[in-house]
Amino acid sequence: MTALWQRHPVGIVGLGLIGGSLGLDLLARGATVRALVHRQATADRARQRGLASEVSTDPAVLRDCALVVLALPLDRLLEPSAALLAALPPAAVITDVGSVKGPVLAAWTARLGPERASRFVASHPMAGTTQAGVEAGAAGLFRGRPWVATPGADTDPAALAVVAELAEAVGARWLTCAAADHDRAVALISHLPVLVSAALLQAADHGAAAAPALDAGAATLPQLVRLLASSGFADTSRVGGGNPELGMLMAQGNREPLLAALGQYRQALADLEQLVASESWPELLASLAEAQRLRPQFL
Amino acid sequence: MTALWQRHPVGIVGLGLIGGSLGLDLLARGATVRALVHRQATADRARQRGLASEVSTDPAVLRDCALVVLALPLDRLLEPSAALLAALPPAAVITDVGSVKGPVLAAWTARLGPERASRFVASHPMAGTTQAGVEAGAAGLFRGRPWVATPGADTDPAALAVVAELAEAVGARWLTCAAADHDRAVALISHLPVLVSAALLQAADHGAAAAPALDAGAATLPQLVRLLASSGFADTSRVGGGNPELGMLMAQGNREPLLAALGQYRQALADLEQLVASESWPELLASLAEAQRLRPQFL
Repeated sequence: MTALWQRHPVGIVGLGLIGGSLGLDLLARGATVRALVHRQATADRARQRGLASEVSTDPAVLRDCALVVLALPLDRLLEPSAALLAALPPAAVITDVGSVKGPVLAAWTARLGPERASRFVASHPMAGTTQAGVEAGAAGLFRGRPWVATPGADTDPAALAVVAELAEAVGARWLTCAAADHDRAVALISHLPVLVSAALLQAADHGAAAAPALDAGAATLPQLVRLLASSGFADTSRVGGGNPELGMLMAQGNREPLLAALGQYRQALADLEQLVASESWPELLASLAEAQRLRPQFL
Repeated sequence: MTALWQRHPVGIVGLGLIGGSLGLDLLARGATVRALVHRQATADRARQRGLASEVSTDPAVLRDCALVVLALPLDRLLEPSAALLAALPPAAVITDVGSVKGPVLAAWTARLGPERASRFVASHPMAGTTQAGVEAGAAGLFRGRPWVATPGADTDPAALAVVAELAEAVGARWLTCAAADHDRAVALISHLPVLVSAALLQAADHGAAAAPALDAGAATLPQLVRLLASSGFADTSRVGGGNPELGMLMAQGNREPLLAALGQYRQALADLEQLVASESWPELLASLAEAQRLRPQFL
């Protein structure tokens, strides 16, 4: 039996990195893709790039779509326009690609109402790059990457299967979990590192700020930290030196799990600091050996 | 005028990564290199690899050397053997390559006594790789890398110039600073990142430890953090997952500056956490923008 995306038009709302990449992959597999975008300039460029079979700024473009993918930024996903809600075909399976799942599931369950909410599948294809916008979409983006769905208690298993078929068609690795677990996981492995890394840059700068050089020819501490920082510092500070808007939106969208992750982190670092302060060298060695043992599990 | 290393034999004590690389570079430039190593097996292999003109386990090999480079691990540098001390030619300029400078300068000033201590030049070529041992030495290791000297109040400027000529001969970027500033700088940009990064691995593991999956088919939180961690997590956790012995020795050797750096870091992270907790989004955006602006200064 063929998948739903093969038998009916697929709607994509938003043609940024995720929406555009999905359009390219689905067209290459023979699907009919109807895309709704916000601005006329985006529609023009998306047509030139061939990101969808039909692109429009008119929500009516979603007519007859049996599956609609909401590929919107998190803020617009949480506050969808009335025109978009009205244009969604009543029987369609609807999914999203937001990086936070609890708030999205709650917002769309409330907006769609009990009967239609069972066909809403909260999901998160984890295929980020630093690119964004209508130029960013690229074929093959999802290949080998996780695509996490977070069904609620009332999610229709048939709707979940429709989205799983979509994810598998573009080569993603499908998995499901509770929305709360997804949000806790991305807080720990994606949002926490941004703050941990940004604080390192600030500590290196602020910690070196005060000291004058002792001799005329000697390097000052602010100069030294900049001259001596090597590849280890560069790696550890990379995500902290990234796009500030993105970091802020992540924190805003996943605030509670991020605060819990920060609490866990604070405790782990305090334990290490205590071992240094108390000169507990065998215990510090054991703790660093634990970190060394853990890392391959995350690669 | 030719440099001292061109006119007289150069002694190297220890033929690990730094000592072996220095031997290769100096031999390639026509120097006579006499190396003292601890074990006979190391001496045999060093001869096979051609790391020095003469290699021995007998301290007498250092006879007639006008410049001796102590390329020893930090613990052996801080507790040199009586045999080594006795074998150092009384008029020689002596330098070291230790990653911490205050304790080395203090230890060697005390051991050499007031007259000879003026010819001890504490220095730190910053050319680490993950390799170690007699197989690690490689030509060209120092090219373009900083070589920091930390002269004391009594250091003879002529001795300092001798070591500067050595550093420049192998292509390093020579700079000088106060020993305390060196140690504070490497605490901030080299030793602090190890603990910051190790704590991230531990937080991701411990923070995910408790939760069971809600459904039979669903991924658990400990599975999720491992499946969803991407390149950002890999980068931020790299140095924390490195050699635990090295991390422990760094902390031991530079404890006070590291504790000060940890204090600076704790404050920077607490400030970021407070902005998230109080939902101060414009201020969080400004703080992350500061981190973004800082990072290129450290690359």
